[in-house]
Amino acid sequence: MENILFILTYIAVSASAISGALEARKNEMDIVGAMTIAFVTAFGGGTIRDLLLGRTPIFWVVDPLFSIVTFFVAFITFYRFNNFPTHLLNVPDAIGLSVFSILGATYAMQLNLSGIVAILMGVITGIFGGVLRDLLCNRVPNVFRHSTELYATCSFIGTGIFILLIWLQINPFIASVVGGFVILSLRLLSVQFKITLPKP
Amino acid sequence: MENILFILTYIAVSASAISGALEARKNEMDIVGAMTIAFVTAFGGGTIRDLLLGRTPIFWVVDPLFSIVTFFVAFITFYRFNNFPTHLLNVPDAIGLSVFSILGATYAMQLNLSGIVAILMGVITGIFGGVLRDLLCNRVPNVFRHSTELYATCSFIGTGIFILLIWLQINPFIASVVGGFVILSLRLLSVQFKITLPKP
Amino acid sequence: MENILFILTYIAVSASAISGALEARKNEMDIVGAMTIAFVTAFGGGTIRDLLLGRTPIFWVVDPLFSIVTFFVAFITFYRFNNFPTHLLNVPDAIGLSVFSILGATYAMQLNLSGIVAILMGVITGIFGGVLRDLLCNRVPNVFRHSTELYATCSFIGTGIFILLIWLQINPFIASVVGGFVILSLRLLSVQFKITLPKP
Repeated sequence: MENILFILTYIAVSASAISGALEARKNEMDIVGAMTIAFVTAFGGGTIRDLLLGRTPIFWVVDPLFSIVTFFVAFITFYRFNNFPTHLLNVPDAIGLSVFSILGATYAMQLNLSGIVAILMGVITGIFGGVLRDLLCNRVPNVFRHSTELYATCSFIGTGIFILLIWLQINPFIASVVGGFVILSLRLLSVQFKITLPKP
Repeated sequence: MENILFILTYIAVSASAISGALEARKNEMDIVGAMTIAFVTAFGGGTIRDLLLGRTPIFWVVDPLFSIVTFFVAFITFYRFNNFPTHLLNVPDAIGLSVFSILGATYAMQLNLSGIVAILMGVITGIFGGVLRDLLCNRVPNVFRHSTELYATCSFIGTGIFILLIWLQINPFIASVVGGFVILSLRLLSVQFKITLPKP
Repeated sequence: MENILFILTYIAVSASAISGALEARKNEMDIVGAMTIAFVTAFGGGTIRDLLLGRTPIFWVVDPLFSIVTFFVAFITFYRFNNFPTHLLNVPDAIGLSVFSILGATYAMQLNLSGIVAILMGVITGIFGGVLRDLLCNRVPNVFRHSTELYATCSFIGTGIFILLIWLQINPFIASVVGGFVILSLRLLSVQFKITLPKP
């Protein structure tokens, strides 16, 4: 079980690092920029969550493997991946949204915070890596644009279901799997059918 | 007394949430963007203050009412307020600047920090919500532009007077009211008479 | 020895404050903007480092002298320095990169963190002031652009040498001086000979 979570986490981290490094190349950055954007995309959400919850030192400060993998992936991506087909990132990125959201909500519940705050922590963990990436690339965050397919919404709904199941005393492992699966499938369906949120 | 502070706080939070949601709509964001910008505008300053002071978990993580009110106001604003007359926000926004500045300085003094740092914490609490809103909307923060009427300056002067009165052993309640009133009236006068800071 | 560190720190803080205030003036900000950008340029990197490590209250919150010097320098720069020759900032800015990087890595090692994280903390301390300055001025951070001379790279190499020497049980004072000197000279050579990182 722990092994599956470990593998899913590093798939998600690698997808974030690749997307960050590609974004950096598009913005005429050098390898320092690419590594930083990759890092921020992969760990920005979890870092903000831990700062808000007071969980310091931050997780990637304590475990150097996160940094090593991210920098390695960013380096390869920056210097070797020409014309990388970005649609290949859709599935691993959705895995990341799913894993990070459920993890974020779990940490909040370990501190006995209210359900709505736990959902919020899940969403923040899931989306703020991309928000910080877009800030550093000097543009309005993609996840906030009305032309973007459902992203935070998937995290919100799936994390909400996860919290509801926990509240109904369902086994936490089953609750995580159900919540995570909802996020993953909602996200992939939204991309497939270009579902967006209603405009004002 | 606590009730008045409670009411003033939620007036200020609602004004920030409305201004954030309107800004999001102007920038072609969806409701996720609107809720996030509303949240960041309302609580960004206090969040940065608490992070700097080490007061974690952050206030809005502990009390879910803040999130609920902000999301509700942002939702209504985004989908229902067409052509909202933004000048209506001037007074509640100035109330927010006033309440948040005095609160920020008070928290700093509870940690026995120096007067200048307490003033700084007041100003940061008062203005950084708007700064983060503008960052996420990808523009130079409005409060820093030389064409903007006095804003941080009002917070600086009023918080300074508050700290001075405390230092002179005036009753803290009276000191807060005087300091807060100075901020509120300076800000409203600046808007009315378009007072800006001297250029270089 | 402590006196030399004190003097070097304030030389670096002043250079950052001058560069921040000049940048603010270029972006049509007022004195509030100039003081904020100066502050963020001088202390942004150290603030992020301390937040990540959980060292709160932050250093400049505890010691008001940092704020006083920065605001004073920013004020003078904003209102008095017309046509300031920015190349004069190259040496003090490189001193700052050097001092802040070594300090950042030292704090990380005091918490018994791994070598790679200590290097990362050195680089973050050295470069994130400028990154935040550029974010607030609404542009892609200069240090990430491929046309920029080596900056983070100098910090990375010098901090790496410092960590290596510590690991080899060399006297920490000597290790700091060697690491810091490498950063300073690499940076000045890069500016002189316009050395940049290889493109993809």
